Amino acid sequence: MEFGKGHGTGNDFVILHDPDGLLELTDRLVARLCDRHFGLGANGVLRVVRTAAAGEEVPESEGCEFFMDYRNADGSLAQMCGNGARVFAAHLWRTGLQPEGALRFATRGGARTATREGDDISVDMGPAVLGGFGSVTVAAGGHTWPATPVHVPNPHAVAMVEHLDQPGALTQIPKVTPSSAYPDGANVEFVVAIGEAHIALRVHERGVGETLSCGTGACAAAVAFTEGGPGRVRVDVPGGTLWVDIRADSSVSLTGPVQFVAQGHLDPQWLEVS
Amino acid sequence: MEFGKGHGTGNDFVILHDPDGLLELTDRLVARLCDRHFGLGANGVLRVVRTAAAGEEVPESEGCEFFMDYRNADGSLAQMCGNGARVFAAHLWRTGLQPEGALRFATRGGARTATREGDDISVDMGPAVLGGFGSVTVAAGGHTWPATPVHVPNPHAVAMVEHLDQPGALTQIPKVTPSSAYPDGANVEFVVAIGEAHIALRVHERGVGETLSCGTGACAAAVAFTEGGPGRVRVDVPGGTLWVDIRADSSVSLTGPVQFVAQGHLDPQWLEVS
Repeated sequence: MEFGKGHGTGNDFVILHDPDGLLELTDRLVARLCDRHFGLGANGVLRVVRTAAAGEEVPESEGCEFFMDYRNADGSLAQMCGNGARVFAAHLWRTGLQPEGALRFATRGGARTATREGDDISVDMGPAVLGGFGSVTVAAGGHTWPATPVHVPNPHAVAMVEHLDQPGALTQIPKVTPSSAYPDGANVEFVVAIGEAHIALRVHERGVGETLSCGTGACAAAVAFTEGGPGRVRVDVPGGTLWVDIRADSSVSLTGPVQFVAQGHLDPQWLEVS
Repeated sequence: MEFGKGHGTGNDFVILHDPDGLLELTDRLVARLCDRHFGLGANGVLRVVRTAAAGEEVPESEGCEFFMDYRNADGSLAQMCGNGARVFAAHLWRTGLQPEGALRFATRGGARTATREGDDISVDMGPAVLGGFGSVTVAAGGHTWPATPVHVPNPHAVAMVEHLDQPGALTQIPKVTPSSAYPDGANVEFVVAIGEAHIALRVHERGVGETLSCGTGACAAAVAFTEGGPGRVRVDVPGGTLWVDIRADSSVSLTGPVQFVAQGHLDPQWLEVS
């Protein structure tokens, strides 16, 4: 089984090149691939497969030759992953499976379009919607801040902090109040303003913990920072720099670099144990 | 640049196959290779190189065609690594660079001999010497235990605990008293007895933190448990099971499984950044 490894601002993925849908990707195999000591190690798996060969019903798939079959590190299915989508598009271009230029592809969260300018790869993230929960607070590291709820469409709580050390080590889940606002848990961004259209953040992802980068988190933080006003915001995440473009209709796009690390094949004996 | 990835009880390594010594392995490249998000990810790098092409003075190298050039994840040099040595020997056998049967190879800590029996690969670890510091205690998770000092030859402190949860999350360095006993820091093992010749442990490695497995730690714990008495001890580590054979002259050997995960080549653009 062939694989590639790449990352977008430190969000790293195992890429399985499976245009004709020949792989049987079990939850257990995904979890083993993503295991950082017993496998290759990654935040998730991107299976690159033709939509017609995906083996599942794909929404808005018209005109999308390829489907991003994204899995979380634990093997569970996910709708969408912003940095993953950027790595996915870069893989299709570099392998020549899709021509350079705007690329429309399918995800479980609906069709997306990616574009490239120099080394930067952008993907549309759909709408990022402010508010809706009334007044929310976030607590971490012995501090409490008011927070802005944003849906991208996964639920975020964005807190403006004085400096990025303030939330402490983030080894525990930040406390969001009232908990009824986020029945399935929240992604929490801790944000400092650096300039008029420039912020830096740390992010705690629900079910994962603190990460080096989070595409929807960058979008949520940018929208909370500009209060939804249109424009481009630079977002420094622990793993690098992303750019968020906010349009008047509240749709956003995510831009940043992608790096491929290695490619190769899995050991047949290792695979056998799966 | 070609690479392999493998592990011994969860201690994982990037293997660089460089028999003729053509690679220039900088500290920075090692650290980037071992980075778990921006690189391949590993506990360390094993460069497989002929002793004559090693580019450095190697002790006890007579009769050793190959040299284990082991590097820690931060790029620093290391004398020896028990699980790494087992992976190193398995690589030489599987690639046919060395014939099956007892294999003598060079390390910065002196020559070692590896053997294989079925899926288990053994390596001699030299002497594991009990005591020498007087009375020592170890504290973690709100508990304090008397500890046994052992040199393998790196310094260990072995504490017998009631159960493996007792030391807590081990996110901080366990406190060893008196600190003068270990001027360069200690590797600390927390051990429970399971049977007469069967223990389980957690280990905190100096400069690293808690790990899934530690070869010298397994040896130190076995010797402390038997008070140096000869025999075979089964050691369950978080990443699997190891066996330690203690001989009457206090020399020990370490036995356990090795698994290869993948092989491939590094992306040329990724390498360029190094």
